[in-house]
Amino acid sequence: MYKCDLDRLSEKIKTFSKFGDTGNGGITRLSLSDEALAAREEFCERLKKLGANIVTDDMANIYATIPGSENLPAILSGSHLDSVRQGGNYDGVLGVLSAMEAVETIVTDKIPHRHPITVAVWTNEEGARFEPAMMSSGVLCGKFKKEDMLNSEAKDIPGYYFKDALQKSGYKGSEENRMNPEKTAGLVELHAEQGPVLDAENKEVGIVEGVCGMVNYEFTMRGQADHAGTFPMKYRKDALYACAKVIDYLHENLDKLDEELVYTTGKISAHPNIHTIIPDEVKLTLDSRHKDPKVMEQVVEVIKNLPESLEKCTVEKKEAWARDTVYFNKKLVGFVEDSVKELGYTYKKMYSGAGHDAQYMCDAIPTTMIFVPSVEGHSHCELEYSTPENCLKGANVLLNTLLKMDEEL
Amino acid sequence: MYKCDLDRLSEKIKTFSKFGDTGNGGITRLSLSDEALAAREEFCERLKKLGANIVTDDMANIYATIPGSENLPAILSGSHLDSVRQGGNYDGVLGVLSAMEAVETIVTDKIPHRHPITVAVWTNEEGARFEPAMMSSGVLCGKFKKEDMLNSEAKDIPGYYFKDALQKSGYKGSEENRMNPEKTAGLVELHAEQGPVLDAENKEVGIVEGVCGMVNYEFTMRGQADHAGTFPMKYRKDALYACAKVIDYLHENLDKLDEELVYTTGKISAHPNIHTIIPDEVKLTLDSRHKDPKVMEQVVEVIKNLPESLEKCTVEKKEAWARDTVYFNKKLVGFVEDSVKELGYTYKKMYSGAGHDAQYMCDAIPTTMIFVPSVEGHSHCELEYSTPENCLKGANVLLNTLLKMDEEL
Repeated sequence: MYKCDLDRLSEKIKTFSKFGDTGNGGITRLSLSDEALAAREEFCERLKKLGANIVTDDMANIYATIPGSENLPAILSGSHLDSVRQGGNYDGVLGVLSAMEAVETIVTDKIPHRHPITVAVWTNEEGARFEPAMMSSGVLCGKFKKEDMLNSEAKDIPGYYFKDALQKSGYKGSEENRMNPEKTAGLVELHAEQGPVLDAENKEVGIVEGVCGMVNYEFTMRGQADHAGTFPMKYRKDALYACAKVIDYLHENLDKLDEELVYTTGKISAHPNIHTIIPDEVKLTLDSRHKDPKVMEQVVEVIKNLPESLEKCTVEKKEAWARDTVYFNKKLVGFVEDSVKELGYTYKKMYSGAGHDAQYMCDAIPTTMIFVPSVEGHSHCELEYSTPENCLKGANVLLNTLLKMDEEL
Repeated sequence: MYKCDLDRLSEKIKTFSKFGDTGNGGITRLSLSDEALAAREEFCERLKKLGANIVTDDMANIYATIPGSENLPAILSGSHLDSVRQGGNYDGVLGVLSAMEAVETIVTDKIPHRHPITVAVWTNEEGARFEPAMMSSGVLCGKFKKEDMLNSEAKDIPGYYFKDALQKSGYKGSEENRMNPEKTAGLVELHAEQGPVLDAENKEVGIVEGVCGMVNYEFTMRGQADHAGTFPMKYRKDALYACAKVIDYLHENLDKLDEELVYTTGKISAHPNIHTIIPDEVKLTLDSRHKDPKVMEQVVEVIKNLPESLEKCTVEKKEAWARDTVYFNKKLVGFVEDSVKELGYTYKKMYSGAGHDAQYMCDAIPTTMIFVPSVEGHSHCELEYSTPENCLKGANVLLNTLLKMDEEL
C-alpha cells in the first residue's frame, strides 16, 4: 500500500489555514475574495512545481493535471477552497490538500499510473457570498443556468455580482476547459464529515455511499394580533403557541421513524414580534434528510397529516424544495472500501447529510466520496477540526483509491 | 342627569380622525409630529372658543381650563392625542374628545360648577417614536428623569431627539405650569378598553378599579449549533425545541391559575436563524398581567419552577421589569359607579390590562378611569372601533362623574 506523508500534509493544512485566518482558529475565505485568490495562487504554484499543467474554465474552476503514461481519460480529485464566514480549516480545503498530497506522493515516489490525474478546485461551493451553494459544479452538470449564476448578487454589496468577482479574479478561463465527461474516468472527493458520527463511533474513515435525499418545508401559522394586557386567554389566537405545537408534533411523529433520519426547524420569524402583542403570524422552516426514499416518503406523510388548525390558528405547509437521494458509483465505492480494508483502518459506510460538489458531478461521471472524522462534529465554525492522523488516513485512502481507479478503469 | 350630545361628539371623532389619516380607516399620529400638532391646534382653538385658558408645561402637556365659581383646586380630565403607527381613531383621543364634549356641555348648558375644570392632553403616551410610553405623565409623577426623556432618540431618525421635537413643536411651556397636586382635586381619564371583554359581555361601560400588576421576563435557551444534515438527532441540543417546551410549560402551568390572568410570549429570536443549522440560542419574552398580587406571585412561582434544562439545552430566566397593581381612588371609582347606575347603563367593574397615563397620575392625585367598549377588542390597529352610542355613554358617565367630583371634593 502506498502512503502519503504526515508532515507534508500537516504543513499544507497549516499553510492554507493562513489564507483568511480570522485569528480565532478559523478562516473567512469567501469565494474569489482576495483571501481565496491567495489560496488559489499557492495551490497553482505548488502544483506547477509538481509538473502539473493548469487550466481554468469559464466558471474559474481550476484543473491541475499531471500526465499519465497512456492516452486515457483523466482521473479527478478535488474539492473547494472557499469557506463560509468564520468557517474552519478543513471543510473543502482538506479535499484539495489531500488530492495535492496524493499527487505529490505519486510524483515524488514515482508511482506508475496510466491515466492523467487532475486535482480540481471548484469555485463557490459554499454560496456564502454569492448564492447558491455548489454553484460551479451545478453549472457544469446542468443544475443551474450559467447566466443566472453570473447575475447572482453579493449578499453584502448591492450591485456587485458574481460575474464581477469572476472577471476580477484572473481565473476566468474558457468554457472548453470544463470537465468533459468523455475525457474523465471518474472523481473522488475527500471531505471532512461535518457531523459527529465517525468521531462518536471512533471510526477512522467514512465510506460514503451517496448523499441523503431531503425535503424542505415552510410552515406558516396565522392567528390574530391583540394587546398582551387586555385580551383574555380564551379569545386568543396565538400563532407562536401554534408554532410550538407544530414543533411538538414534528418531534412526536418524526422521532418514530428511522433513527438515522434528521430534521431541523432552524429558522423562525414572528410578526409583529413585539413583547406586548400576541403574534399573528409565525413562519418556521423544516429541513429533513435520509438516505432511504421510503423514509423520506414517511416524512412527507407526517407533514401532510399535520393538522390544518392548531390552537385556533391556521397552519399552512409549503414545500420549498427537495432533492432525491444521490447514489455514488458502486465500483468507486468498492475501490474506497478495498483501500480502507487493505490499509487496516476502521470505517463506517454512510450517506452524506450535507451537500457536496460530488453530488452534482455524480450525474455526469462516476463519482464517490471519502469522509474524514470531524472532532465533535463541529462544522461551518472556527472549532472545526480533524486530527492530522485522521487527515493522513483519509489521504492514504484517497491515494490508493486513485491508484485502483487508474488500474481498473 | 346631564347628557352630552351625540352629533357633537361624533363630529369631534370624525374631525380628529383626519389628523394623520392613513386612508385605511386609521391614523398615524406620532407624538409631536406635524399631524399631532395639527390635532393640538384644533384642540386649542375649540377650547379657546369655550372660554378656556390654555397653558402648556415644559413637557408640552396642554391644560385647557374653564373657571369655576369658587377658588378651588381644578378637576382634571383628558388623555393623549398621539397614536402608534397605523393606529386607530379611539385610543387616547377619545379621552380628550369626551372631556372636550363634557366641558362643552357644561359651558353650553351653563351647568353650575364650583371647581375650575381642566381638559389635559398628555404628551407622548404611546412612546411609538420616542420611548418610553407614558413619558410625560411619568416625568410629572417622578417615574422618569426629565433629562433622560429629553435625550430619547427617535427610532426612525438617528440623532433626532425628543428635545428637538419638543423645541420644534411650539408647545413647550414652563415647568411651573405642570399639574400641581396641591391645586388639583382629581383626574378622570376616559379610554377605549383596548380589549374585547366589554364587547363580548355586552356591557356599555367599564368601571375601572385599577391597573393590573405585571411581570416581564426574558428566557434564553442555549444549545449547540450544528449542521442540519449531518448531526444525528440523539446528539442534538436544539434551542428552538427547548423554546417550544418552555411555551408548553407556561401554558400548562399558567392556565391552571386564575382565568383573568393573561400572559403573552410575543417576541422570539433564534440564532443563527438559518434553515440548515440547528439553533444554538433562542430568546423569548413573557408578559403576564393580573389585578391580584397573589396571582402574580403564583406566576412568578411558576416561572421560578421552570426547569433549568430542557431537551439538553440550558434555560435562563431574567426578570426584565415588573409593576405592582395600581388601585384607583375608591371615592372616584364610586362616583363613576353612581353615575353609571343613575344613567341606567350596563357595566362591568374591571382592571385595566394596558398601561395608561392615569396609572402614573394616580400616585400624585386622586385618579380613576372609565372604559368604553372596543368592538372585538381591536386596538393599536386601524380596525380599532367604538360605536358612537357607546362613546356618548362614556362621555355621559364622564360628565356626571366630573360634576359629582365638583360637588363632593
